[in-house]
Amino acid sequence: MTDSYAPRPEHHFTFGLWTVGNPGRDPFGDVVRVNLDPVETVQRLAELGAYGVSLHDNDLLPYGTSPTERQTILKRFRHALDETGMKVPMATTNLFWRPIFKEGAFTANDPAVRRFAVRKTCEAMDLGAELGAEVHVMWGGREGVEADAAKDVRAALDRYKEAVDLCCEHIRAQGLGLRIALEPKPNEPRGDVLLPTVGHALAFIGDLEWPDMVGLNPEFAHETMSGLSFSPAVAQTLWHGKLFHIDLNAQRIGKFDQDFRFGSEGIRDAFYVVKLLEDSGWDGMRHFDAHPYRTEDREGVWEFARGCMRTYLILAEKVVRFRDDHDIQEALRSAQVDRLREPTAPTGLRDVLATEVDEDALAAQGYGHEHLDQLVTELLLGIR
Amino acid sequence: MTDSYAPRPEHHFTFGLWTVGNPGRDPFGDVVRVNLDPVETVQRLAELGAYGVSLHDNDLLPYGTSPTERQTILKRFRHALDETGMKVPMATTNLFWRPIFKEGAFTANDPAVRRFAVRKTCEAMDLGAELGAEVHVMWGGREGVEADAAKDVRAALDRYKEAVDLCCEHIRAQGLGLRIALEPKPNEPRGDVLLPTVGHALAFIGDLEWPDMVGLNPEFAHETMSGLSFSPAVAQTLWHGKLFHIDLNAQRIGKFDQDFRFGSEGIRDAFYVVKLLEDSGWDGMRHFDAHPYRTEDREGVWEFARGCMRTYLILAEKVVRFRDDHDIQEALRSAQVDRLREPTAPTGLRDVLATEVDEDALAAQGYGHEHLDQLVTELLLGIR
Amino acid sequence: MTDSYAPRPEHHFTFGLWTVGNPGRDPFGDVVRVNLDPVETVQRLAELGAYGVSLHDNDLLPYGTSPTERQTILKRFRHALDETGMKVPMATTNLFWRPIFKEGAFTANDPAVRRFAVRKTCEAMDLGAELGAEVHVMWGGREGVEADAAKDVRAALDRYKEAVDLCCEHIRAQGLGLRIALEPKPNEPRGDVLLPTVGHALAFIGDLEWPDMVGLNPEFAHETMSGLSFSPAVAQTLWHGKLFHIDLNAQRIGKFDQDFRFGSEGIRDAFYVVKLLEDSGWDGMRHFDAHPYRTEDREGVWEFARGCMRTYLILAEKVVRFRDDHDIQEALRSAQVDRLREPTAPTGLRDVLATEVDEDALAAQGYGHEHLDQLVTELLLGIR
Amino acid sequence: MTDSYAPRPEHHFTFGLWTVGNPGRDPFGDVVRVNLDPVETVQRLAELGAYGVSLHDNDLLPYGTSPTERQTILKRFRHALDETGMKVPMATTNLFWRPIFKEGAFTANDPAVRRFAVRKTCEAMDLGAELGAEVHVMWGGREGVEADAAKDVRAALDRYKEAVDLCCEHIRAQGLGLRIALEPKPNEPRGDVLLPTVGHALAFIGDLEWPDMVGLNPEFAHETMSGLSFSPAVAQTLWHGKLFHIDLNAQRIGKFDQDFRFGSEGIRDAFYVVKLLEDSGWDGMRHFDAHPYRTEDREGVWEFARGCMRTYLILAEKVVRFRDDHDIQEALRSAQVDRLREPTAPTGLRDVLATEVDEDALAAQGYGHEHLDQLVTELLLGIR
Repeated sequence: MTDSYAPRPEHHFTFGLWTVGNPGRDPFGDVVRVNLDPVETVQRLAELGAYGVSLHDNDLLPYGTSPTERQTILKRFRHALDETGMKVPMATTNLFWRPIFKEGAFTANDPAVRRFAVRKTCEAMDLGAELGAEVHVMWGGREGVEADAAKDVRAALDRYKEAVDLCCEHIRAQGLGLRIALEPKPNEPRGDVLLPTVGHALAFIGDLEWPDMVGLNPEFAHETMSGLSFSPAVAQTLWHGKLFHIDLNAQRIGKFDQDFRFGSEGIRDAFYVVKLLEDSGWDGMRHFDAHPYRTEDREGVWEFARGCMRTYLILAEKVVRFRDDHDIQEALRSAQVDRLREPTAPTGLRDVLATEVDEDALAAQGYGHEHLDQLVTELLLGIR
Repeated sequence: MTDSYAPRPEHHFTFGLWTVGNPGRDPFGDVVRVNLDPVETVQRLAELGAYGVSLHDNDLLPYGTSPTERQTILKRFRHALDETGMKVPMATTNLFWRPIFKEGAFTANDPAVRRFAVRKTCEAMDLGAELGAEVHVMWGGREGVEADAAKDVRAALDRYKEAVDLCCEHIRAQGLGLRIALEPKPNEPRGDVLLPTVGHALAFIGDLEWPDMVGLNPEFAHETMSGLSFSPAVAQTLWHGKLFHIDLNAQRIGKFDQDFRFGSEGIRDAFYVVKLLEDSGWDGMRHFDAHPYRTEDREGVWEFARGCMRTYLILAEKVVRFRDDHDIQEALRSAQVDRLREPTAPTGLRDVLATEVDEDALAAQGYGHEHLDQLVTELLLGIR
Repeated sequence: MTDSYAPRPEHHFTFGLWTVGNPGRDPFGDVVRVNLDPVETVQRLAELGAYGVSLHDNDLLPYGTSPTERQTILKRFRHALDETGMKVPMATTNLFWRPIFKEGAFTANDPAVRRFAVRKTCEAMDLGAELGAEVHVMWGGREGVEADAAKDVRAALDRYKEAVDLCCEHIRAQGLGLRIALEPKPNEPRGDVLLPTVGHALAFIGDLEWPDMVGLNPEFAHETMSGLSFSPAVAQTLWHGKLFHIDLNAQRIGKFDQDFRFGSEGIRDAFYVVKLLEDSGWDGMRHFDAHPYRTEDREGVWEFARGCMRTYLILAEKVVRFRDDHDIQEALRSAQVDRLREPTAPTGLRDVLATEVDEDALAAQGYGHEHLDQLVTELLLGIR
Repeated sequence: MTDSYAPRPEHHFTFGLWTVGNPGRDPFGDVVRVNLDPVETVQRLAELGAYGVSLHDNDLLPYGTSPTERQTILKRFRHALDETGMKVPMATTNLFWRPIFKEGAFTANDPAVRRFAVRKTCEAMDLGAELGAEVHVMWGGREGVEADAAKDVRAALDRYKEAVDLCCEHIRAQGLGLRIALEPKPNEPRGDVLLPTVGHALAFIGDLEWPDMVGLNPEFAHETMSGLSFSPAVAQTLWHGKLFHIDLNAQRIGKFDQDFRFGSEGIRDAFYVVKLLEDSGWDGMRHFDAHPYRTEDREGVWEFARGCMRTYLILAEKVVRFRDDHDIQEALRSAQVDRLREPTAPTGLRDVLATEVDEDALAAQGYGHEHLDQLVTELLLGIR
């Protein structure tokens, strides 16, 4: 084994405070690990080579923190950041834990709840900006319904838009310099969640007041829950210029939200995501939104964090090999991959309509996908 | 039993020629029914009370039809339409059956295949317009991949856009008066299909040359395959002003594309879709893209068609009852459904940021969703 | 509306204390309802017409209850039972909540944990028997794994068998008169759970020491999570003579364990389950293992319970109509449903091998499933 | 690259004639490859290092083959086998393609269809035995239903049992020396298929007349469709002593039956299956029931076959490394994997009931699953 897979800050690995800090509570079981002090988290992750942390408002400031306590907590936390050089590139708002949000937050039927949610978000954006964040993630986990009659989806989208517009207005008014990244999810904890996939959220952005301020935070697990492959989702997000942040983890299709260690399930999908990020020159964060298995003690937590980053780096090295592998490049040519970049109608529609093709010859072509895919399999398995 | 559920043309029920004409071939079995003559289909559906039919180019004109044969076939088909008063409100292109499309159509890696696909689509649009169609559906069933390395998704989206733009150019140049409706599907026959959901297709439209000319043809089965509920998908489509056509059928989550008789699975989902269409004043087609079970003989085919329409009408009647039911309306009030239409910030952001709420009181509210949902269940079960 | 759907004790409706008592905690949210006193639960459910309640050991006796407290609690609880006439036909063991079970219970790798689990189960069976239970349910929610290398499945099945055998031994030794009902589940809270479906559990029973003492408690939601239809699962369970208990609720395929109100999703599936129970003369419990939506206050909890029972009774009435409906009975004949009861080889194999059939004629038969299924749809929708 | 992954007959790799011979037809597309001559298949697979082929009756003998043609075809086929040393270890019956089976085969409602199916199976078993097969696979793809009312599941299981019993009787009467292997599948082509999982089929076997003659042919894709992990399914099959044959391929959860090249999806799952087969000393076939992508020409077909076998051998080598890897072995000890083999109650139930445990200490244990799983990930990725 080599340490060529040792993470370093320039790799831009970040973790939510709530990820390594996850106490192991699940729908059928109590917490199994004591809470982590955010300061310790910063220190340990810095030692492991991470670039920074992200946080929900209440990960750092327990709900109800007084202004004085806020200052004390922030001071201590900043000190840890300064000492370690760790950053906080992203913050987000907890709009799901407290009972007030049980019927929704930005799209709660009760206007008072919606106002509470917008206000809490503005305060969380203030906090994020104060800590140097450039992105504010919005995950609308409670924006949904089980009893369909109870929610008018079109009105809900009106209110969702209004809320995001208000948040943008706050950013502009206060000069917070933030961009907003919507995080789609199909279900859980609600039976159906609004903006269930990357696609729905991308479409929604087009109708906002300041669409340029809003992009996406796609999550591996959330797309995968619906059986939608993650790398095409990220590719479409990039195509629209809307990749503002990304959540890496692992998940099996059609199951509860698992948030496993990156690469622990879906190795091939993980590879293609890393390939896409590396090929596209993504210079943002490689953010892990995952949590350790409930079987782990404190030491297992750090093994979990170490594993997320190592697997990313191992896959990134394979991306380089992919480019350098003569057989793979030859197979890409047989599959005519590059020809997809040629315009279909370089000389206009008229010529397309006049073209005659030899359909039998085109139909008889083999594309060599089995060979190409096998080469990728062997690359992944480490024998290329 | 009453015949208050007898379909009439003003209900706007349409069927694809390929639906009742489906011969019962499946991945593991041969055809079980002989092909239906499109003229017979028109006549039988007219008798059953349908408004019209839709078609793929090759449903009517077998591939390779000569110009002379084309005229003969069209004349005979038009005659049947005229005789019965049936319409052809929608046409589409078969870009999936022939081996030339095995690697894709609009997004095939080989430019010659792409040109063939664009040309075939333009000819299919000509055919549709000739028959009076107002919508041309585009289902990109072969636009996808199994071996991810073989397809650059961002380049594929460039080509997809180029192809749709070329088709719009053709519509404009020829004055065909058509609108295009994209039909999303997550997978099958490809491992992953581009524009896998309503959301992805809505987002894609925003980047087209003539976005106003392009909308959606969402399909019950296709969204449901991914576990995404259909009525919120249609609601978001309406919200964006992009419902151009709709495909009604039935499907279980996470299974092969079943295209069952409308209402035969997912009764509750079917109800909410009908409710949405009726509540929103949708004046387009109620189009069935389904096929009879393989167990059926010819008589079963027409039972299938009859059933699709009857179930729609039964559910539409329940939509009226829903509005008139005092208990349901009372439960909607308890759930504060209408209050979602009130702006969150009627007096602006500043007031929102200044508002104090009684969080405990808001958290303690009950929304009565169990009661409301039970009332809807009983409405569906016919005891309200 | 009529009260012909009013539940009465002879309908054998039971609820887990943990179902109406569910405080609304979920993976992303805190509790929203205060705990229900089991005595109040008994009283309220009695008023609503239920037959009894079921319980986990720790639903009644908080973990760590001293022998004295145990007596006090039991006395008070029995008093409520006596007063209301309510029964406790089933009890079960909580082998999932406490951190000690994080790696498993009967199949934990650590033998000390396994012994703890067996002992806790024996004590829970003692409690159940004391309260008059006839069935002890075993749900092995923690018997699984995320990191496959960490569990030898064959050894785990050895230990699972050993544990169930030990529990049977205890029942026999103490004369508890209980039967054990295994409850399968595919995943959640573990990534993969042992005995994931009705089938796997049925097979497992065949290898036990006292297979006659052990049967199943199939659950609607658990089978449905995997996309397996519930009524065929229950039918196979009945076929093996192993339906000892049943858990009714609602669930969408491929999602987190939703445990919705019976009939709120999957109306058709719910009908076929009720039909099977009624047709087979099932004289056991109609047990609801579901919980109210998190949007509900206390009143919503009782609406939830009322709804579960009402929907069962509405569907049961439809079962009677199904039998009495002339068109449905005619359609069953066309589909040759009864002929499946005729032996295939009434005169032995030799005659089968010698039979000539008119394959074309047999292939040409129509079975009228579209018609039959539409009739059932209309029966469900209340217009037959 | 090395040729240490070159398949040899002793590796026991077999392919169905229908796998490499798949012509690329799918629900939305026509055939894209011409039929392969079975003799050529035998020759090419022999060159690639396979051990043998398997076949449906009609893969070799087109339906309606006369006795004379039968002899000619068989003579030529045997000649190819003799020349190459290839074997036919398994045969099966096509009970799904022809329209007569549209309503079922062994469980068709019409007794004449059932007799036809039993007779066809007996003839296929004769053929298999003649070619030296030791296992006859039964996949009941048509044994299911879409319209639930049309099938009495308990009666269907009676008939299923009767059919399998009749087949066993035929084997015994004719001294064919065959064992039967049931192949479960949850759905497709039917909405719901009987015996949907490994578990259901294992349970069913227990009720047969000659249970020892019947075991399973579990398939990777079929279990995975339901989201059930394949290696625990195979492990339970082995635990019951019922692994008679196995179908290897690849599949994503919750999608149509994909039958991809082994290892092309689900690398981790594929590894654990190979590990289980190798660890358990499985001396049967490594049978591939998969087909080449539709994008492939003839050359791609053989790349497909080569890839299935190479990936197996690459993974088998990793199984050896797993055993030899010091860190992995250490992590297994930390996870106490071996301790699951210790009896829970070595000295009997009484001692278990009397044991006191230190619950807090047991709950505090960490099992190191993140570390262990990361080591396996790195083994798979080839950096251990």
